[in-house]
Amino acid sequence: MKAPIRVAVTGAAGNIAYSLLWRIAGGDCFGPDQPVILQLLEITAALDKLSGVIMELEDSALPLLWGVVGTDAPDVAFADTEAVFLVGSRPRTKDMDRSDLVAANGPIFVGQGKSLEAVARRTVKVVTVGNPCNTNCLIARANAKKLPDTAFSAMTRLDQNRSAAQIAKKLGVSPDAVHNVFVWGNHSDTMAPDLRLATIAGARAGERLEPAWVDGDFKKTVATRGKAIINARGASSAASAASAAVDHMRDWWKGSEGRIVAMAIPSHGWYGVPEGLIFSFPVRIDPTGSVSVVDGLPVDAWTEARIKENVADLETERNAVAALLG
Amino acid sequence: MKAPIRVAVTGAAGNIAYSLLWRIAGGDCFGPDQPVILQLLEITAALDKLSGVIMELEDSALPLLWGVVGTDAPDVAFADTEAVFLVGSRPRTKDMDRSDLVAANGPIFVGQGKSLEAVARRTVKVVTVGNPCNTNCLIARANAKKLPDTAFSAMTRLDQNRSAAQIAKKLGVSPDAVHNVFVWGNHSDTMAPDLRLATIAGARAGERLEPAWVDGDFKKTVATRGKAIINARGASSAASAASAAVDHMRDWWKGSEGRIVAMAIPSHGWYGVPEGLIFSFPVRIDPTGSVSVVDGLPVDAWTEARIKENVADLETERNAVAALLG
Repeated sequence: MKAPIRVAVTGAAGNIAYSLLWRIAGGDCFGPDQPVILQLLEITAALDKLSGVIMELEDSALPLLWGVVGTDAPDVAFADTEAVFLVGSRPRTKDMDRSDLVAANGPIFVGQGKSLEAVARRTVKVVTVGNPCNTNCLIARANAKKLPDTAFSAMTRLDQNRSAAQIAKKLGVSPDAVHNVFVWGNHSDTMAPDLRLATIAGARAGERLEPAWVDGDFKKTVATRGKAIINARGASSAASAASAAVDHMRDWWKGSEGRIVAMAIPSHGWYGVPEGLIFSFPVRIDPTGSVSVVDGLPVDAWTEARIKENVADLETERNAVAALLG
Repeated sequence: MKAPIRVAVTGAAGNIAYSLLWRIAGGDCFGPDQPVILQLLEITAALDKLSGVIMELEDSALPLLWGVVGTDAPDVAFADTEAVFLVGSRPRTKDMDRSDLVAANGPIFVGQGKSLEAVARRTVKVVTVGNPCNTNCLIARANAKKLPDTAFSAMTRLDQNRSAAQIAKKLGVSPDAVHNVFVWGNHSDTMAPDLRLATIAGARAGERLEPAWVDGDFKKTVATRGKAIINARGASSAASAASAAVDHMRDWWKGSEGRIVAMAIPSHGWYGVPEGLIFSFPVRIDPTGSVSVVDGLPVDAWTEARIKENVADLETERNAVAALLG
């Protein structure tokens, strides 16, 4: 058995974490031979609830869970961490538009960024799940300048998974057969799935996907999926968001085995996206955890328009939090 | 990859199932090379909510999840199943005592027993999680007489896990180091943990566990754990119950690797427990899934009293549902 790694989860008493923690402690992210110490962050008012979650984690007697810490202090939660899930964020309420949401979350991620810089491992891998995740990640990254760009990411994997799942369902194949679906840009209404590289059991999917379906039902279903789930469940997506976070971190930790996946990372100018924006690109990840953007894809008129739309969206969000970027 | 197996979960839109489904579909029960088709049962009024859970399962693009069926018809949910989790039950409300609870759940499990007999595989493994689980299992088993005793069980693994976790915490070892803890009897207030065979990293635990702690804090903590979690979380144990169900089914499916675990199964008279009562015994499970009660353990005065107390408890429950046992 390996030495344990320290893994932080914020918003740890919330619904996404309630699904995520058992997946992490069960070995789904870091492998069946990698013990973990979970370091769980919550706001002070939720520490009682968190203590109940910790009791349940203990009660599960999970072989890989070698310790659990619960705290309201980021410097305790992030101390010596090698992997961090920033799940906690201020949820959007009915009276908030997206700019209100961005502004409400800003201060949380300033403090968490500074704390990550101060106490996390230099090799830490941070995935931002709490929405608006791209811009929350931007704020954390800007407040942790001594950490490398490669430490930060935001999650568009749920969009990717939803896209792949719709294709699998349409074609009657297992979701495992669908590879190389990715999404561009912001985890928001402008997010753009790209199926041009998609494969089904290794063969190009293109000819099996009718353009009318892709432009119609497919895009509509993926774009409105969150609302459909809220309507049916009476609660927002939690287990599927947690599952996407598991996929994101597992691929980052162990490599994507040659597959193309979607990750939002600090742009180095790829595809004309301004430096520093946290933008979802098609990437491959090698077994050491090094992320490479798949460069040189043809940018047709549709794709160019979608990239520009997402850049504009993210620049608007960035402007709303400019004062927080140090 | 193996051919998929059909796995049913009842109460599938509830909180325990919301944790359990992703663990099953992630491979935690049946292994990383065993695809599953989930067949999910709910009451008619919860089918909308269930449709949201199914959307989220689809959206997770889980490689082992080859299909999902949602239904309010037991004969559809249990058709051709090899493993069944009976999670759904009528929860206890403030005005109900345990006999009311037993009576309220009875009719559910009559129908499910008949349906299991009619449509499940002859080799099906049924674990009853919904409380009162021993007696709910008794009712289902009595209404499925053509299925063998070996098809039925009820879950006392959460009690076992809680016991092992308290020992691990007390001694500062990982939960994986604690083996051979089990519990006797009914999953209720009379449930009795037995630590006489417990080992820590292979060595007998006995001398490291102070009798005063075992008889005091240990038993009190384990016995009142459910309430402590409700007080802290504002909701009853769900993820830890799901995790115990995963452990129960995984060990039943693949074997317990020589370890002793707790399972409530139809008694064949072991330790003086009347034939047919669903009673938690210490068992070992071989790699074919065959369950053997660990027989011949010395029954000291304390253990004898606990066994008798649990038998009386379960006989009272059985009398309350006598009309349902066919």
